[in-house]
Amino acid sequence: MGVWGDTVTLVLIPGSALVGIGFALLQWFLVSRVKVTEDVNGYHENLMENEDQEEGVDQLGVLIKCSEIQNAIAVGATSFLFTEYKYLTIFMGAFGAIIFLFLGSVKGFSTESEPCSYNPENLCKPALANAIFSTVAFLLGALTSVLSGFLGMKIATYANARTTLEARKGVGKAFIVAFRSGAVMGFLLAANGLLVLYVSINLFKIYYGDDWEGLYESITGYGLGGSSMALFGRVGGGIYTKAADVGADLVGKVEKNIPEDDPRNPAVIADNVGDNVGDIAGMGSDLFGSYAESSCAALFVASISSFGISHNFLAMSYPLIISSVGIVVCLITTLFATDLSEIKHVSEIEPSLKRQLLISTVLMTAGIATVSFFALPSEFTLYNFGSDKVVKNWHLFFCVVTGLWAGLVIGYITEYYTSNAYSPVQDVADSCRTGAATNVIFGLALGYKSVIIPIFAIAIAIYVSFSLAAMYGIAMAALGMLSTIATGLAIDAYGPISDNAGGIAEMAGMSHKIRERTDALDAAGNTTAAIGKGFAIGSAALVSLALFGAFVSRAGITTVDVLTPKVFIGLIVGAMLPYWFSAMTMKSVGSAALKMVEEVRRQFNTIPGLMEGTAKPDYANCVKISTDASLREMIPPGALVMLTPLVAGTLFGVETLAGVLAGSLVSGVQVAISASNTGGAWDNAKKYIEVSPLVCRLISSCHVESGRV
Amino acid sequence: MGVWGDTVTLVLIPGSALVGIGFALLQWFLVSRVKVTEDVNGYHENLMENEDQEEGVDQLGVLIKCSEIQNAIAVGATSFLFTEYKYLTIFMGAFGAIIFLFLGSVKGFSTESEPCSYNPENLCKPALANAIFSTVAFLLGALTSVLSGFLGMKIATYANARTTLEARKGVGKAFIVAFRSGAVMGFLLAANGLLVLYVSINLFKIYYGDDWEGLYESITGYGLGGSSMALFGRVGGGIYTKAADVGADLVGKVEKNIPEDDPRNPAVIADNVGDNVGDIAGMGSDLFGSYAESSCAALFVASISSFGISHNFLAMSYPLIISSVGIVVCLITTLFATDLSEIKHVSEIEPSLKRQLLISTVLMTAGIATVSFFALPSEFTLYNFGSDKVVKNWHLFFCVVTGLWAGLVIGYITEYYTSNAYSPVQDVADSCRTGAATNVIFGLALGYKSVIIPIFAIAIAIYVSFSLAAMYGIAMAALGMLSTIATGLAIDAYGPISDNAGGIAEMAGMSHKIRERTDALDAAGNTTAAIGKGFAIGSAALVSLALFGAFVSRAGITTVDVLTPKVFIGLIVGAMLPYWFSAMTMKSVGSAALKMVEEVRRQFNTIPGLMEGTAKPDYANCVKISTDASLREMIPPGALVMLTPLVAGTLFGVETLAGVLAGSLVSGVQVAISASNTGGAWDNAKKYIEVSPLVCRLISSCHVESGRV
Repeated sequence: MGVWGDTVTLVLIPGSALVGIGFALLQWFLVSRVKVTEDVNGYHENLMENEDQEEGVDQLGVLIKCSEIQNAIAVGATSFLFTEYKYLTIFMGAFGAIIFLFLGSVKGFSTESEPCSYNPENLCKPALANAIFSTVAFLLGALTSVLSGFLGMKIATYANARTTLEARKGVGKAFIVAFRSGAVMGFLLAANGLLVLYVSINLFKIYYGDDWEGLYESITGYGLGGSSMALFGRVGGGIYTKAADVGADLVGKVEKNIPEDDPRNPAVIADNVGDNVGDIAGMGSDLFGSYAESSCAALFVASISSFGISHNFLAMSYPLIISSVGIVVCLITTLFATDLSEIKHVSEIEPSLKRQLLISTVLMTAGIATVSFFALPSEFTLYNFGSDKVVKNWHLFFCVVTGLWAGLVIGYITEYYTSNAYSPVQDVADSCRTGAATNVIFGLALGYKSVIIPIFAIAIAIYVSFSLAAMYGIAMAALGMLSTIATGLAIDAYGPISDNAGGIAEMAGMSHKIRERTDALDAAGNTTAAIGKGFAIGSAALVSLALFGAFVSRAGITTVDVLTPKVFIGLIVGAMLPYWFSAMTMKSVGSAALKMVEEVRRQFNTIPGLMEGTAKPDYANCVKISTDASLREMIPPGALVMLTPLVAGTLFGVETLAGVLAGSLVSGVQVAISASNTGGAWDNAKKYIEVSPLVCRLISSCHVESGRV
Repeated sequence: MGVWGDTVTLVLIPGSALVGIGFALLQWFLVSRVKVTEDVNGYHENLMENEDQEEGVDQLGVLIKCSEIQNAIAVGATSFLFTEYKYLTIFMGAFGAIIFLFLGSVKGFSTESEPCSYNPENLCKPALANAIFSTVAFLLGALTSVLSGFLGMKIATYANARTTLEARKGVGKAFIVAFRSGAVMGFLLAANGLLVLYVSINLFKIYYGDDWEGLYESITGYGLGGSSMALFGRVGGGIYTKAADVGADLVGKVEKNIPEDDPRNPAVIADNVGDNVGDIAGMGSDLFGSYAESSCAALFVASISSFGISHNFLAMSYPLIISSVGIVVCLITTLFATDLSEIKHVSEIEPSLKRQLLISTVLMTAGIATVSFFALPSEFTLYNFGSDKVVKNWHLFFCVVTGLWAGLVIGYITEYYTSNAYSPVQDVADSCRTGAATNVIFGLALGYKSVIIPIFAIAIAIYVSFSLAAMYGIAMAALGMLSTIATGLAIDAYGPISDNAGGIAEMAGMSHKIRERTDALDAAGNTTAAIGKGFAIGSAALVSLALFGAFVSRAGITTVDVLTPKVFIGLIVGAMLPYWFSAMTMKSVGSAALKMVEEVRRQFNTIPGLMEGTAKPDYANCVKISTDASLREMIPPGALVMLTPLVAGTLFGVETLAGVLAGSLVSGVQVAISASNTGGAWDNAKKYIEVSPLVCRLISSCHVESGRV
């Protein structure tokens, strides 16, 4: 038993979750004080505040336009998400039913208690109960995931125009609005995820009583629910946003030679909607999925270890307490960005965001130390593929901390490779002098190179945590990386919000000065979005490994030997799956973008006065194209992911399946990091070229080429 | 003991090797009958033969020009290879010394015989002798590799202009010259590789006598020598050819708007040299390396199995007999292309080459069956990670045949994804309508998708051969895939020869009609070059696995368990290495290409009359840039490959190293196939667009963009 008592969990976990929610609401309130309203009072108030009054621009007109555009984006995003959720509800229902039937049928929907699997002296609850509770946990996880994505999208579409309007007062003010809004999403997600999990455990416990094995096994449904929603949210949202982005730019920038986010471009609203449904809602679901999976994996392993067997609820709740402390740490960290310092110049944006990562990591290290020493017994045993492993509390401290710091390393390296403040992106920009071809070569090479250090960071985290505490250690390393999720998501969501803000400034016809500010926010946002993806990939790698461990434990496998044909072919086929998946999604984006291009061209050709700005384009049609394409196209990649384990396991057995999982894990993480950083670097190389007119003149049309991908 | 006696090996192996060499020389003689000479007799003779006499083109001038250009290319290629070999000689010497010192020092350069490792009842030769013979075998392998590459380059630079000149008589004649020349290389390489190995074994045997364990262990040096030369040949040649290619096109096509291979372009000779040193010499070394490694791996495993222990020389020589039969099969296959059918139209080129693959595979299947039933005992045991595995002769038949047919599948799938006769490449070409960006997306997606079936083919070959005959089976599957290497290389080398032929036609100012023919040969050549790469990758994957098995056997490892931290981090770091390697080589190509661009621009700006065709460019300077860049830049990737096992093994032990090897194998094969096919598809999409003027007009500048990478 640790130093603290069980009451600590009763206070600390729900307490910090509620504090997190409260803090998020406070941030929301602060953002809402920026008025986007058409009534004259609001207008005057805004005008009074505006220190940076510009002449020659119709302020009331701008305000009205901002409000209109914001509304169009919000309507588009909401309608897409509702359509997506309609499909996902059907999927959730079907998948939930399968889970219930599979789990229940294994023991014929038995209603008799029986000896536990891992601790056969105890009696465990009947199979039917486990099936019911697992299904409920699955649905709860799926719902929380949907909620996380939806709330993020709501605040993002609420904040985008407000960021634009605040940019009139200076870059610092605008930054704070964007960052606060990101924080709303970050804290809501972290706190909701924790609270729902905590409440579920306590409610399930009323039924399960002393059968912790059954309790925590059924709770794993929560993780599965979260991550299966994440899969579709990410794929659907990703196809949506990229199809709209590529489609809009190809006709707008390349053919019609009008700037990005020009209101005459029919796909411009779809493009901005895409940022919200892809990079906000999708990312929110994604990180929630990783968070839920790692928590559940840790809890399950703990339940069949000495914590569970000796019924030490405090130690059992160690993963949840880490997350609780994470919320408090992130709260303090946020204050550094919003209240304790002020951005006065665009060059301070990126350092400020980077500082957030560092502060949260340092504070969290202290937090993890405290929790590890007070909540854990000084020595205990953990389940390790059939045997028991003796572990000390400071071992777990190191597990969580290596995950946390690996996250920081990934974040910093991602920033280095995707920010236009450093030589890698500048080299890519420079390579444009000789055309699109060298740009492609340098961009891909950059992505490949950016894999090296993150992989070493992940490998070290795996080695330390795996050696010290087996699969529990891996799950806790993942949770360590995700413990500062509120700050990570705030930084990440800041990106698409700033991107939207820039778009709104352009569409509302605001002055060059303001667009310069929103562009600077946006450039930093491209980098932070890449950092967010880096975190998501790194934590997903660790979580996958933890789940892989859970799978082999549950399947009763004690070795996965590469020197057997079944495992080896699993490994090589598994390593191929990320390529198959990427081929599907890239092809989907490509064809959807082609459709978008045709629609945009059609509108330019058939709507008289569109190019001159006297007629309005039909934004809704473009939104519909992206929506339809992404919903239709998300099925095959989703099916690939869901069916592969079933097919491999059924046809070739668990050894091959274990090989497939290990192969796709080690190959997928490389594909993901390299693709994500190549994309981020190309995006910022474009921004780098756009702001250096000297370079721009030299390279004629290259800035258009480089940004298209 | 099989049905045949030992004398069969004495006749069949050297006999078929000599037949192969004789056949190659015959082909060379047939090619040499096309005269590229400046004396008037030759000119008249040529003129008489030329049924397709064109008017308005100065025939004598064309002939002289062809001869000059051919000479420039040959001089450039020879000088590059000599410089490269100078460096490689130093490397070979140093590496040979390391091998000698390492192997010798393990047992203190002992001169005493001692009990064998695998069969301790026998006395084996002393450590010093093993060290000496291994080093000699290493040097022989390296020399044979260099010879293979060099001879290939010689015949290719001899045949390019002859192909161009024959194109005046029709596409069929030109095809035969190019194909015959490819066959010269294919047969010389296959026969030399086999002969040197066979002779070495027999010479070594004079000393080793009954100590077959020591004999075949020292023979493995042959494989190492071959593949370490291949590494540098491939990397150096690859950087050379791509830097020249990209550099030439970027200024020539994009900036100056002059056609590909225009003689005014200063980099055009370097570009054509590149095809010979990269795609011919590099590919030759590469395939020889795979061939030598798989033969040696199979021989070594056999030597510690019942073949070796019972001193069954016929069965021991099974891998060599398979290769011998392969030479005979390929000889018959070649006649189908050169004598039994005739190409009358450009559309018949690709089917004819594809038919070569099919014929050789079908004939070889019968050959393998014959050898397996007559040369092998009906039942025997094979070494399998410490235990013995009982194997029947028809088991080995299936091992070799699955490898062979997996190669055919890879070849056909590669053809499907890289030939412009099918929808994948046509879709990529079509995506150019919307610019370079969609082209990049579709091209990368095509490469990713093209991985799926080859990986399944390789996985099936691995599963069958691994299950039936453990690591010996894998090595034999690799050898099965490589058994038709003479035909494979003929098809592959045909590509760069045709590419050069097209270049010479353009540079010599030949008529549009002739360039159309050489272009058609070239388009088929892009596909066959991709097929060659596919074979190289597939066989390399199998060979690597066989060597991996040899390594773990030798290191005394019986399991490589993914569920241990040491192996898992090896796996994930290993999967990263191909990305690191690719980042290095791509960056090298990028920077070398940039230098080339600057030099070409400089020449256009400073040499008066260059653009008008009245002055000659300084070709030699461009050749020098490519040479220097490739030799300098091949060191870091080479060092990465050579040092990784040393560092991983020394710092983290053999388990981690085993993980690293497995990880880089399963990840590298995907990266290789996707990159190779994306490149082949882009190249042929360009050709597809160039020959369809209707499409061309629609897409304005896209055909330039798409080909640049």
